[in-house]
Amino acid sequence: MMLRVGYPKGLAPDLLGLFPAGVELVEVPSKPESPIAVDLWIPAPAPVLGQRTWPWMRGVKTVVTLMAGTEWLMPLVGPEVTVCNAAGAHNISTAEWTVTAVLGVLKYLPLYRDLQVAGNWKGRSEASRQYAAIHRDERLQFPPVLQEELHGKRVLLVGHGEIGKTIEGLLTAFGVELTRVARTARTEPVVVHAVSELDALLPEAEIVILILPHTPESDKLIGAKQLGLMRQGALLVNAARGAIVDTDALVEALNAGRIRAAVDVTDPEPLPEGHPLWKCPNLLLTPHVAGSTPEFSPRSVKIAAEQVGRLLRGEKLVNVVKAGV
Amino acid sequence: MMLRVGYPKGLAPDLLGLFPAGVELVEVPSKPESPIAVDLWIPAPAPVLGQRTWPWMRGVKTVVTLMAGTEWLMPLVGPEVTVCNAAGAHNISTAEWTVTAVLGVLKYLPLYRDLQVAGNWKGRSEASRQYAAIHRDERLQFPPVLQEELHGKRVLLVGHGEIGKTIEGLLTAFGVELTRVARTARTEPVVVHAVSELDALLPEAEIVILILPHTPESDKLIGAKQLGLMRQGALLVNAARGAIVDTDALVEALNAGRIRAAVDVTDPEPLPEGHPLWKCPNLLLTPHVAGSTPEFSPRSVKIAAEQVGRLLRGEKLVNVVKAGV
Repeated sequence: MMLRVGYPKGLAPDLLGLFPAGVELVEVPSKPESPIAVDLWIPAPAPVLGQRTWPWMRGVKTVVTLMAGTEWLMPLVGPEVTVCNAAGAHNISTAEWTVTAVLGVLKYLPLYRDLQVAGNWKGRSEASRQYAAIHRDERLQFPPVLQEELHGKRVLLVGHGEIGKTIEGLLTAFGVELTRVARTARTEPVVVHAVSELDALLPEAEIVILILPHTPESDKLIGAKQLGLMRQGALLVNAARGAIVDTDALVEALNAGRIRAAVDVTDPEPLPEGHPLWKCPNLLLTPHVAGSTPEFSPRSVKIAAEQVGRLLRGEKLVNVVKAGV
Repeated sequence: MMLRVGYPKGLAPDLLGLFPAGVELVEVPSKPESPIAVDLWIPAPAPVLGQRTWPWMRGVKTVVTLMAGTEWLMPLVGPEVTVCNAAGAHNISTAEWTVTAVLGVLKYLPLYRDLQVAGNWKGRSEASRQYAAIHRDERLQFPPVLQEELHGKRVLLVGHGEIGKTIEGLLTAFGVELTRVARTARTEPVVVHAVSELDALLPEAEIVILILPHTPESDKLIGAKQLGLMRQGALLVNAARGAIVDTDALVEALNAGRIRAAVDVTDPEPLPEGHPLWKCPNLLLTPHVAGSTPEFSPRSVKIAAEQVGRLLRGEKLVNVVKAGV
């Protein structure tokens, strides 16, 4: 019998050509109206769609997601199901977002966007005022400071998986001083500190980048204490998951003018209308956009199609997050 | 007699320590009230201040600017005066601004800033609409496009001096396909095309970066014809001087939804209130901020102090823009 592969409705038709011959491709609507039997299921790349679809799926032995995150899936699937993610599909886009966010803050792009909307050139002097306030540096600058540099900054990179390594590759070109943190310490091929050393490392960093998975251990990893350990005016960048940061503590630190932040993820998410985070100063907030580029679908579907090929040839799957028993 | 060096009032006192012993440092106010005699003059790093000060200066044999641009000085000084610029002082900051501007457009930061100000998460779907409109690509994207990637883009770098080379170093890390253009073609150490080939190269580029000096030859180098040769949705970045682009033609191309642009410089500058450029779509505009970082003063004053050292030791000056006769 042919391997039945369920794919999400809406996938561009030309991407279906990436799948190997010898499989039966089954389109799965985002709101199924009757049960759908497949051997391998590729959920739509949005947890809410995947969650809605799962109760209709039958006979699934393998789930291959188009996203890196699979935490939404774990409470749903039984022990017999193997779950693979699309590690790699988000590397470039998320790493690029991270560097964009760092530079956007250092170059005062939010301020300059507001000035552009207002048609106001002279308001650029506000940049000097913001610089003096956030760095508690009232020395007269001549010429006035209108942006900051990334070059030479001390960066603490928390998380050193594939996306973290891609971020490191980009930041290296800018001449930063990088310190790495991950779950476990290692010295080969590069020095990575254990997350247990995080509190000791925070006071040195001018930029702290979060790019680690959300797990019970990383939940609220950055709380009031950690924010308090950060330097005056340091920049916290969350490119991972909202719940890794204690939102209330972040709002408090921002409103106190203690630190700056750039986040693509929030807790809760979507961030509700009227939430205090929206109005915090020194914050660049994007609405969870980092992974969604035109290149994402071809890249992630190619990864999924290669998994299907492995199954057909009886080879081991890669990117296995949970092996079925 | 001691070498008399005029420096601009407002310079941080600790920077004066960068100058070698054996010179007389003379503070020059921004509005002098009597003539000031110096051998070497370091004007304030803003043309308007330098222009105001020049008529009061006496005996100047050498001008060492703190900026790269010296075009404002040329009509003022006589043939006997040597002019040196601070080539190098702006490299990092301007190159970083350029990459920030490219990424800011590709990641739709202006849109996301507006949404943040409005406290609106769901409005992110506007990114997909903008993407479809500017690229004339109405295909259904799944998941929807919320940002674009720099990776793999074809970049045309127009200008390959020190800042251009620094930009190239940063962009290379992002995996772009780079084509170089400068005044004269060369093949060593890298292939650089002549500016006469510009029109033939424009149709291929997805991103066009201007980082060349403003000269009579480069005045309005990018006019209606060149903008018309650019691909639909391509991005024009001006990190050089406003007058290198024909502003009327740029406004027309932007309002027609033909191209995107990011500019730190405009013509006229400052851009007056109510100028049509302010309201153009697909434009990221910053008010000439690229060079003004906290690191600028120490870096440019160090360059000037080294020139003073060369004069004292009877060595040749560097960065000579115009040799006195």
